[in-house]
Amino acid sequence: MKIALAQINCHIGNFNANKGLIIKHIEHSRASGTDLIVFPELAVCGYPPMDLLESADFVTNCTDAIREIATHCIGITAVVGSPSKNPSPKGKNLFNSAYVLADGEIKSVFHKTLLPTYDVFDEYRYFEPNTEFKTIELNGKRVAITICEDLWNEEDDPMYTFSPLEKTGEGKIDLVINIAASPFDFNHREKRISILQRNAVKFKSPIVYVNHAGAQNDLVFDGGSMVIDANGEVLFEASYFNDGLFQASITSNIVSAKSTALSKEERIRQALVCGIRDYFRKCGFTDAVLGLSGGVDSALVAVLAAEALGASHVHPVLMPSEFSSEHSVQDALDLCKLNGLTSRTIPINNVYDTFLNELTPAFEGKPFDIAEENVQSRTRGTILMALSNKHRYVLLNTSNKSELAVGYGTLYGDMAGGISVIGDLYKTEVYALCDHLNSTQMRIPKNILTKAPSAELRPGQKDSDSLPDYDLLDRILFHHIEGKSGSSSLIEMGFDAAVVSKVLSLVNRSEYKRFQFAPIIRVSTKAFGTGRRFPLVASYS
Amino acid sequence: MKIALAQINCHIGNFNANKGLIIKHIEHSRASGTDLIVFPELAVCGYPPMDLLESADFVTNCTDAIREIATHCIGITAVVGSPSKNPSPKGKNLFNSAYVLADGEIKSVFHKTLLPTYDVFDEYRYFEPNTEFKTIELNGKRVAITICEDLWNEEDDPMYTFSPLEKTGEGKIDLVINIAASPFDFNHREKRISILQRNAVKFKSPIVYVNHAGAQNDLVFDGGSMVIDANGEVLFEASYFNDGLFQASITSNIVSAKSTALSKEERIRQALVCGIRDYFRKCGFTDAVLGLSGGVDSALVAVLAAEALGASHVHPVLMPSEFSSEHSVQDALDLCKLNGLTSRTIPINNVYDTFLNELTPAFEGKPFDIAEENVQSRTRGTILMALSNKHRYVLLNTSNKSELAVGYGTLYGDMAGGISVIGDLYKTEVYALCDHLNSTQMRIPKNILTKAPSAELRPGQKDSDSLPDYDLLDRILFHHIEGKSGSSSLIEMGFDAAVVSKVLSLVNRSEYKRFQFAPIIRVSTKAFGTGRRFPLVASYS
Repeated sequence: MKIALAQINCHIGNFNANKGLIIKHIEHSRASGTDLIVFPELAVCGYPPMDLLESADFVTNCTDAIREIATHCIGITAVVGSPSKNPSPKGKNLFNSAYVLADGEIKSVFHKTLLPTYDVFDEYRYFEPNTEFKTIELNGKRVAITICEDLWNEEDDPMYTFSPLEKTGEGKIDLVINIAASPFDFNHREKRISILQRNAVKFKSPIVYVNHAGAQNDLVFDGGSMVIDANGEVLFEASYFNDGLFQASITSNIVSAKSTALSKEERIRQALVCGIRDYFRKCGFTDAVLGLSGGVDSALVAVLAAEALGASHVHPVLMPSEFSSEHSVQDALDLCKLNGLTSRTIPINNVYDTFLNELTPAFEGKPFDIAEENVQSRTRGTILMALSNKHRYVLLNTSNKSELAVGYGTLYGDMAGGISVIGDLYKTEVYALCDHLNSTQMRIPKNILTKAPSAELRPGQKDSDSLPDYDLLDRILFHHIEGKSGSSSLIEMGFDAAVVSKVLSLVNRSEYKRFQFAPIIRVSTKAFGTGRRFPLVASYS
Repeated sequence: MKIALAQINCHIGNFNANKGLIIKHIEHSRASGTDLIVFPELAVCGYPPMDLLESADFVTNCTDAIREIATHCIGITAVVGSPSKNPSPKGKNLFNSAYVLADGEIKSVFHKTLLPTYDVFDEYRYFEPNTEFKTIELNGKRVAITICEDLWNEEDDPMYTFSPLEKTGEGKIDLVINIAASPFDFNHREKRISILQRNAVKFKSPIVYVNHAGAQNDLVFDGGSMVIDANGEVLFEASYFNDGLFQASITSNIVSAKSTALSKEERIRQALVCGIRDYFRKCGFTDAVLGLSGGVDSALVAVLAAEALGASHVHPVLMPSEFSSEHSVQDALDLCKLNGLTSRTIPINNVYDTFLNELTPAFEGKPFDIAEENVQSRTRGTILMALSNKHRYVLLNTSNKSELAVGYGTLYGDMAGGISVIGDLYKTEVYALCDHLNSTQMRIPKNILTKAPSAELRPGQKDSDSLPDYDLLDRILFHHIEGKSGSSSLIEMGFDAAVVSKVLSLVNRSEYKRFQFAPIIRVSTKAFGTGRRFPLVASYS
């Protein structure tokens, strides 16, 4: 049985593009004698379509696309993900489905049973769970078709009361197909392989797994489509972050090259580059603008953007103030030189002074405080957005996860931007990624990596004036955000109670800032944004 | 059977406050000979707790609070909403529960069966649905305890495959209790009454319904707790928007005063005032700042804020520019005078000119366009945020739903603000609310209501230069946003295809702006914000 894994990069709602891509891969595979071609979950419309699914027109577009694709399936069987209408008047109006297309028509439709509704997933918002467990015969094999989460009911703390394969085929399945929309995090490859292996062994069946490759909003779908045999051995593993059509067999390892495990930093690099590139392409933009402070965060974003868009499409702006250190401007210029970037300098002193002059009566003689600091930051935000508006650039946000966590940033100032590139990297991870980038070629000047972090919004300011050292801060934040540990658990772990109390209070108090923040390219298991939802009016820490 | 309906205003996560309130009402009711006191859904922690539910500490706080409350239930039975731990290792870790407390202990726990997961609701994100259908005997009556959505499976297009009461008590129920967290929209009272009446008649049982009163984030819980008899007659209807403890009986109308139906505008007025007041109080703020343009939107927000916070706690700022009309300043000053508001004037010309001067090289000789317009708007946003930061004011946003829909606003400029007061009112609804406010006392000067809307960001600009008339625009938007009609359905309704295409394209293209917008006090069935979730990278309209 010759199988093709169509690890495609869909564009949400772009039916012509998605359909064209799917038909192209079907035609190509048919010509090369493929028996079965498998596409990812919701391939016709892209994942996640979100509330577009509530439009009847949108769903009709999906089912129309499926019918058109079916006409191309002559001499080949295709499995294609699409929403489908629930024929019953009871329950939600849609299923999340896998269509089996052959002989020019729809042969069968399988529905998703386990609907992930946690973190970034909202599937029960739209879909009725499947309750009918069946198989289909393909090339003489009894095949069970599942959709992503259907294989993910964990053994140790199962989120669902059963796994659909337990009810399918009375334990006699020759092949499991799993079509997926499984977003990247830096540990996800190993998790995914282990889940698929466990299922293969438990249900004594090979598994063909096909994922999306490409970014949508904040989510990076990293590909890594796979074939696993009934013993749990990985026979084939497709590339990561790149879309493509891969030939595989369920009986032998026809492709010798398996992916090797990349380092955490290299995975993150590839994910962020993919995230930037697809955001721009899918939104119809080519060029980026960003502020370069001379600090490590904006330096890293500039380097990643240059890789994703090309250095000539990245427009860094230096906006020094009276509080900028001597090094800052030179460090930023050195970075541009190293990376072939052409920068522009627009000092903020004149605008800042004019603001303060106009604000003097309204400030009523109160001392310099965060208000003046934020005027500087918002002046920079306004300059960057002016360039964005005038030249059709997207402003790249340069905030990191540590500062987003504790609210160490100015809403509408340095928190401005169309997309956040490193908002899911703690400060210590920012440094690690810079070191990784520098390991093959010097991209980030050493001085940027060795000087003490500072917002430079008042004389001699250092991040460590008001925050714990990042090593400590990031460990507390990781256990609180990824680990969901509250204050009593953190104190039990050995963290100082006063520090814990301060950090958690900062995290909770800055919820309102993150609520208005740009989408963040997600690389961890718990990013700020749609995957983490907290009330703004809560009194709890 | 003497029943008390405890329609309370909880504070999310504030266990001491919520517990104190609950115990106070229990003690008071016990002293007055009440048999049964009923509190709303998730009363111990407030609704919606959102991802706080994922913290083990938080859930322990809830169950500890329940145990403490139980010790006060001697000689009285209380029904109190709280999350509870799912004892099974399978399924989600929590239930959304109603605890029955009596004789100083927990007598029984009922769980929610139908978990709303649509619009602003995300309950399947956290909770396992109930599968055990039971009753409890209270004062010799067979009582079924349900939680909010459990009674809401609609007859015409049921979202769930069954209604829990169909499986409860074999059709012999003497009383149904429903504890709720049911947010306001301007038609919701009638919908709610009709749903409760249908259930009462269908299951031949009186219903005691208890809702929250008070706002949490973007949601206003409007109270309106009720007792309905087995014939569907409303025996008692509590007040709207006010919390309180109400005595009722299921056998007779002991309280003669039923609420009368208020006009749409009066409901919206009360909801917005409640929304502002609770946002400030629960976040620990007292004073608001806002920009007064002389236009109708900011005028309305100023009047509502003065009602919610007191005129002396509202700080309007006039920020005229070279493009401001003569009338604008005078209209804004007249508004302040009518409403006892003290305003401050900070012209933006000097800052704007300084910005343009610094930006001249970067603008590369390109003509005046949206970039310069947005610099004005962001200058105003920066001034307002400076006052917010310096004086601990919350910036009230003044955007309306029509302009948010089509992206007619500047991100980080007039789209700035901690909370959006009228972001769920179309422009035509803004005028209607102003007329309503003026009907009892002149609050908004006539000239503000009669002049043509303009952003005044370039000479002679009018909203109608680039948008259809608001009467037409708002009708298209309503059918598209509330009605979820796509372009083909709108054209079928008789709207002009070119206008539909333009409007829908504007709506889709501005998704990225709304993504970064403040929480919007919700008054319709479909507000922008957490209840409406669209992908930013989609290509679809």
